[in-house]
Amino acid sequence: MDKVIVHKYGGSSVATVSRIRRIAGNIVRYKKKGYDVVAVVSAMGDTTDELLTLANKVNKNPAERELDLLLSTGEQVSSAILAMAVQNRGYPAVAFTGFQVGIITDSAFTKARIMKINADRIKKELKQGKIVVVAGFQGMNLDMEITTLGRGGSDLTAVALAKSLDAEVCEIYTDVEGVFTADPRIVPSARKIRRISYDEMLELASLGAKVMQARSIEFAKKYGVRIHVRSSFNTKPGTIIMEEVKEMEDIYVTGVAVDKNEAKITICDVPDKPGIAAHIFSKISERNINVDMIVQNVSRQGYTDVSFTVSKTDLSKTVEIAKKVAREISASDVIIDDKIAKVSVVGVGMRSHAGIAAKMFKALANNKINIEMISTSEIKISCVIRARHAEKAVKTLHKAFELHKLKR
Amino acid sequence: MDKVIVHKYGGSSVATVSRIRRIAGNIVRYKKKGYDVVAVVSAMGDTTDELLTLANKVNKNPAERELDLLLSTGEQVSSAILAMAVQNRGYPAVAFTGFQVGIITDSAFTKARIMKINADRIKKELKQGKIVVVAGFQGMNLDMEITTLGRGGSDLTAVALAKSLDAEVCEIYTDVEGVFTADPRIVPSARKIRRISYDEMLELASLGAKVMQARSIEFAKKYGVRIHVRSSFNTKPGTIIMEEVKEMEDIYVTGVAVDKNEAKITICDVPDKPGIAAHIFSKISERNINVDMIVQNVSRQGYTDVSFTVSKTDLSKTVEIAKKVAREISASDVIIDDKIAKVSVVGVGMRSHAGIAAKMFKALANNKINIEMISTSEIKISCVIRARHAEKAVKTLHKAFELHKLKR
Repeated sequence: MDKVIVHKYGGSSVATVSRIRRIAGNIVRYKKKGYDVVAVVSAMGDTTDELLTLANKVNKNPAERELDLLLSTGEQVSSAILAMAVQNRGYPAVAFTGFQVGIITDSAFTKARIMKINADRIKKELKQGKIVVVAGFQGMNLDMEITTLGRGGSDLTAVALAKSLDAEVCEIYTDVEGVFTADPRIVPSARKIRRISYDEMLELASLGAKVMQARSIEFAKKYGVRIHVRSSFNTKPGTIIMEEVKEMEDIYVTGVAVDKNEAKITICDVPDKPGIAAHIFSKISERNINVDMIVQNVSRQGYTDVSFTVSKTDLSKTVEIAKKVAREISASDVIIDDKIAKVSVVGVGMRSHAGIAAKMFKALANNKINIEMISTSEIKISCVIRARHAEKAVKTLHKAFELHKLKR
Repeated sequence: MDKVIVHKYGGSSVATVSRIRRIAGNIVRYKKKGYDVVAVVSAMGDTTDELLTLANKVNKNPAERELDLLLSTGEQVSSAILAMAVQNRGYPAVAFTGFQVGIITDSAFTKARIMKINADRIKKELKQGKIVVVAGFQGMNLDMEITTLGRGGSDLTAVALAKSLDAEVCEIYTDVEGVFTADPRIVPSARKIRRISYDEMLELASLGAKVMQARSIEFAKKYGVRIHVRSSFNTKPGTIIMEEVKEMEDIYVTGVAVDKNEAKITICDVPDKPGIAAHIFSKISERNINVDMIVQNVSRQGYTDVSFTVSKTDLSKTVEIAKKVAREISASDVIIDDKIAKVSVVGVGMRSHAGIAAKMFKALANNKINIEMISTSEIKISCVIRARHAEKAVKTLHKAFELHKLKR
């Protein structure tokens, strides 16, 4: 077998017939280079949202099983059309749904997890010289029910297939040129990062960098799948997401990310007794809500304030729970603040270099940006600030860490 | 298990969200009557044509395998949406693709034949009290490839499931109220036929009555599946298609059909030698073209004219073959005539009653309608006439056989 390459094309890359034709050209280009090509596709443009709208017209709360049966058609259509476009260039191509290429998942409809992949069928087609196009985002459980992998699930399909096929690289084609030191729309001098570690990318993904879904990067890290994020509109090299190598640590900070999609909830005057915090957050997690940052004030006279952030999409559900819990524990009030932003710096170099946090706080202070909450990990420092300062903070930090000069 | 009923809803019946809601109501009505309901659906409105248009934009001649993968999504969408609409009325419903309910076909993509149905999954769901919605028109071959059953294939899905589930009746919901003695748009006094035999319906289907696909009726006849063709817009009884019973023979003619979709080809001055006709028509059938009527003139001086009709969609292909054959056999010319219509009378009573043909020819002659070709079967007489006389011919025959008084 030739060396295998997996391509993944997102919704915007297959939104129109002319874009699909161009992609077919790109696939053929790799075939001519001697690769066995497997292309994973998302649904065309806004198809998934349109199908959701249709479903909501007949049922505000449709069963997730039928929702998956419905949504999976989007990728089925684009895979068939892309295969036809490749055939039109005179190359043999064959399209498959997720279940046809043996992507077996659990039964968690709308957010299924891949249990195993039986890639024999794909290998057989590749051996016959065919280009294989696979509908992303979907699989089948052991009862032959069609499942979907959640938003961004096509990335996961691509990475998982790359692993099963022992592909040289998994190329994620998207509408950006790669991963940048900051959002170029905010910081014009932002630089494309040539190589980034899985861990850094994971922090950036969860921080709202939106290039790739965190689950796919975790999977790639676990199995050592090399990812190349690049543009579907040109052939410039993008960003390689890969295992960490020694030189990466020479750079303290690799990127600055900002996330305006969180809101802060404060429960005031919480009795400062053991088990109270556990009570609050277990009630929230029971409803499958992810809490991001948590800050508890210093106790005054046996009472404290507990603040935490959640995604804005979970805000109303969370407030409902917080109010109920506040009554139970006799807290005085629940305050909601959705005018916040979280700005973060990320870099594996932090592990071995002290003083990054101090430098970050000082840079923000010098620009009169007040820090309201702080959280850190081994390779990340995040600060919650006022939303109106978000862009200024990103520019400030990008400059302070000299990311416009980044060489990696 | 309760008694089972199979419903089939065509594309116009599921074209809009409000129609789907109404259909959900109809399904629930039968569930309340105590039936186990299996509903087979076509794609919404013009979905299939839209998908074909999309395919043709990337490839004028797409592979049939990928075409089936593409087209099958139309029914998958409508089955999911209809199930959601039923769920919205508070009844448990579950949607399936063709392959999920064990519809195994051969590998003739775009026109696959059902080889067998394993209805265990449907039976299990019905036993649990669920309403089962099935995507029509599709199945899977033994290699797990998605296949489609050809235009009108959803009727076949419904009839085949009715047989497998031993259903009481297979109700075909459509945009007409049933089968009429003639097209009511041509003959306002046309009557709905309450009961019609499979054989009569087969003749009418192939004659352009367009209510149901011939293949589904053949299947129903073979396995004795009772069909009820009725309107999806009201609850009036429609037409039962069933095994022939004695009383049916009391009516000589049951319906008048007209078909303007054929064209006539004449090969002139064909040497009148044994084997020449066989040569002509084997060349045509090799290209999978169905010839309908064939007429050969009386030979004059060792030469004859051979005329035959084919569907207009096959005309250009057929002419190409006819011209080639004409050269080979030294015939003088090939004449094309696409201004013809075929008018037919159908009825099982013809078998036991003489004089129907004479009555038909006389009625046409009295109205100055010239007959150009004639063909007959046991229960049908067809005449080719000028297309401009088509409607007059239908009215004339409807009156001559007193079909406005039909009691069956």
